Amino acid sequence: LIERMRSYGETIFAEMTRLATETKSVNLGQGFPDTDGPRSLLEGANRYVLEGVNQYPPGPGRPELREAVARYRSRRHGIDLDPETQVYITVGATGGIAASLLSLVEPGDEVVVFEPMYDSYAAVISLAGGVRKPVPLRRDDTTGRFTFDPAELNAAVGPRTRVVMVNTPHNPTGAVFDASELEEIAKVCREHDLIAVTDEVYEFLTFDGAPHVPLATLPGMAERTLSISSVGKTFAVTGWKTGWVMGPEPLVRAARTVNQFLTFSANGALQMAIADAFENEEKWVEQQRDALQRKRDRLAEGLVETGFDVRPCEGTYFLMADIRPLGYSDGEDLARALPREAGVAAVPAKVFYDHEEEGAHLLRFAFCKQDEVLDEAVARLRRWH
Amino acid sequence: LIERMRSYGETIFAEMTRLATETKSVNLGQGFPDTDGPRSLLEGANRYVLEGVNQYPPGPGRPELREAVARYRSRRHGIDLDPETQVYITVGATGGIAASLLSLVEPGDEVVVFEPMYDSYAAVISLAGGVRKPVPLRRDDTTGRFTFDPAELNAAVGPRTRVVMVNTPHNPTGAVFDASELEEIAKVCREHDLIAVTDEVYEFLTFDGAPHVPLATLPGMAERTLSISSVGKTFAVTGWKTGWVMGPEPLVRAARTVNQFLTFSANGALQMAIADAFENEEKWVEQQRDALQRKRDRLAEGLVETGFDVRPCEGTYFLMADIRPLGYSDGEDLARALPREAGVAAVPAKVFYDHEEEGAHLLRFAFCKQDEVLDEAVARLRRWH
Ligand SMILES: CSCCC(=O)C(=O)O
Ligand SMILES: CSCCC(=O)C(=O)O
Repeated sequence: LIERMRSYGETIFAEMTRLATETKSVNLGQGFPDTDGPRSLLEGANRYVLEGVNQYPPGPGRPELREAVARYRSRRHGIDLDPETQVYITVGATGGIAASLLSLVEPGDEVVVFEPMYDSYAAVISLAGGVRKPVPLRRDDTTGRFTFDPAELNAAVGPRTRVVMVNTPHNPTGAVFDASELEEIAKVCREHDLIAVTDEVYEFLTFDGAPHVPLATLPGMAERTLSISSVGKTFAVTGWKTGWVMGPEPLVRAARTVNQFLTFSANGALQMAIADAFENEEKWVEQQRDALQRKRDRLAEGLVETGFDVRPCEGTYFLMADIRPLGYSDGEDLARALPREAGVAAVPAKVFYDHEEEGAHLLRFAFCKQDEVLDEAVARLRRWH
Repeated sequence: LIERMRSYGETIFAEMTRLATETKSVNLGQGFPDTDGPRSLLEGANRYVLEGVNQYPPGPGRPELREAVARYRSRRHGIDLDPETQVYITVGATGGIAASLLSLVEPGDEVVVFEPMYDSYAAVISLAGGVRKPVPLRRDDTTGRFTFDPAELNAAVGPRTRVVMVNTPHNPTGAVFDASELEEIAKVCREHDLIAVTDEVYEFLTFDGAPHVPLATLPGMAERTLSISSVGKTFAVTGWKTGWVMGPEPLVRAARTVNQFLTFSANGALQMAIADAFENEEKWVEQQRDALQRKRDRLAEGLVETGFDVRPCEGTYFLMADIRPLGYSDGEDLARALPREAGVAAVPAKVFYDHEEEGAHLLRFAFCKQDEVLDEAVARLRRWH
C-alpha cells in the first residue's frame, strides 16, 4: 500500500456494521434505511433490465437521468444546467467526490474541510497528495446548533488552498447550513478564487421546513462550484450506487476525465429507473422526509430518556448524542463496547475529526429505521444504563 | 484539471460510440454485445431487487459473490482463495484496476505494460503519479501472433519498477499469452521482486481450445499477483459494472483501502444474481464462447474479402485488421472517416500505443454482435471499398 494511504484502515461503517451483525445488535451505525424506496422505482429497474438496458451506458450517464437531474435542480433551486455538459453520472456520491477531488487537487494543494467530516473526504485528499485544513463545527451556545467561526474559516485558507469541501445537510452533525453560513463560505471562495465541492446527498432530507440551499445559488458561486448528490438517500436505495456531479462545464469535464478511468460508468438500467422516479415520485420523497422527521423525534426522545444530551438535528439520517451525562468520556471506546454491552451499534463521532478532542464525547445514531427498530434500540439502551 | 491528467480527453470508446450513433453506423468500435446475458441472470437481478437487496452491500462485496468467485477460480484453475480476505468486489474491472494501481504505485514508480494497452492503464498510472514503461507486442513472423521479445521486457525493468501490468486474453490484439510467454513474465517478476496486476476480463472467451492461464498459477506468482476479472464479458452484461480483485491478502487489502473511498461498494442485488449465474449458467458461458468464435470467423472472412489483412485472434471480442493493403496508412484518420464514409465504426489501435508507429496501420473491430449486424457491416465495407 502506498505510504500516504497507510493510516487508513477499514471504514468505521464497515467495522461497526460487522460488529453489529456479530453481536446481533440493533444497527444504528451505518446510515442506511431498513425499508426500500418507492415500488415504482424497483419495478422500473426490473423493467429496464428485462427490456435490455444491460450494456455500457454512455460514460457520462444516460441522457434520461442527466435531464431529470437538470430538471429537479431547476425546479427546486432555479439552477440551470445543460444536461449534456453540466451533469455527469457517477458511482454514488462517493464516486463523484473521488473524481472531483482527484481531478482538482495537485500534490501539496490544500483543501478546507469542516470537521467532523465524512471519512472519504480525508482519504481522497490524501490519495490526491493534498493536505486537509479542518475548520471545526462547534455547538452554538444559544441555539445548540453546530456552526463554524468565520474567523477560523478564513484562517484555514492560505496560498496553497485550492478547494473548499462543503457538506450540507451535514453528516454527522445534522446541521443544515443557513444563508449566512453559506455566504461566509461563498465570500471566502470568491475572495481567494477557490473551487467549492459540495456534498448534498441529504438535500431532500431537511426537517421543520429548513430549506436546503445549494452553495451554487449564491452570488458568484455557480461558476466555481462542483455540486454532488445521489439517489441513495433521496429514494432510500443506498445500495444502488448512483450519483451525479453538477456544475460549470470545465469542472464537470475535469471530474469526467478522471472518472472515466476510475469506473467508466454507473449501471445503466438503474439510471433509467431513477430518471423516472424523479418525475413520478416527488410525493414519496416528501413523505419519506416527514416520516424521517418523526423518527428523529422518536429516537431523540428515547436517547434523552436514557440520559444522553441530544443535539439539534436539522437534516440527514443522524442524531449526535453527548455521552458525558451518562458518565462516559470516550465515544470510541463506548461505541466499540455498546454492541456487546447493550446490543446497539452507533458510530463514534471522534473518527470524523482531526481535532479528536472536539468530538470525543459524541456518538452518532442513525434514525432511518422502522419505528419498532428504533423503539427496540431505546429499550435496550435503557436496560443497559 | 490536475496537470498530469491534461493529456487525457474523452475515451476513444465514448468518442467512437458517439460518432457511430450520430452517423447511424454499425458500431464495431466499443466492445459490448448486442444481446444480453442469460435470462436467469436478468430475472435473478429482478428478484433480488424486489426482495429488498437495495441497501449498501458490505464494502468488500456480498459474501455470496465472493464465494462464487473463489469457487470458479478453484474449479477452473486450482487456485485457492479465501473468499473473506482474498476476493474483493469492485465497480467493474475498471474499478479494480484503478484501486489496484492507485494503491500500489507511488509517485515516480514505474509500471511495465504491454502495448497496445487498454486505455485506463495509462491513465491510472498517470493519476498515481507513476511512469509507464511499454513493451511492444509485435507480429511474430512465423505464426502471425502478437508476441513480445523477452529481451525488451527485461530492458523495461529498472530499479523503480514496482508493477507489471498483464492483460490476457489481450485487448485489443486478441492474443492469449501461452505458457512460455507467461513464464517469461513470471521470471522477471520473481527476479526483480515485482507485483503483477492482471486484467483477465476475457478469461472465459478464448477460442480454438486455447487455454486461459492465470499468471497467478505460475511458480512463485500466487503471492505477488493481484488478478482482476469481471462479469461484463463473461455474462454479456457490460453495463452491470461488477468486477473483482483476487490475490494474496496484503495486496487485496491494499486495493480495498483505496477502493473504499473511490466507490465504497458495487451494487448489491446484481452481485447476488451474478453469484447464482456462476453456479447455474456454466453451459451458457461455453455456448457464448463458441458463438463468439463463429462470429470471429464470420467477420474475419468479410474483412479479408474487403481487402484487410486480418491478424490471428485467440480470444476477446476483437479482431485487428491491417489497413495497408487497402492503400491506407493512418488508422486514426481512417477510423474517424469510416463512420461517415462507410457507415461502420471501428477503433484505431494507434491510441493504445505509446510508440504510435507500431499500431498506426491497425483498426480494431468488435465481433460480439448479432450475425446480421456483422454481415451488414461487411456489406457496407465492401460497398465502401
Ligand atoms: C458508504 S457507507 C456510509 C454510509 C453513510 O453515509 C454514513 O453512515 O455516514
Ligand atoms: C469501458 S468502455 C470500453 C469497452 C471495452 O472494453 C473496449 O471496447 O475495449
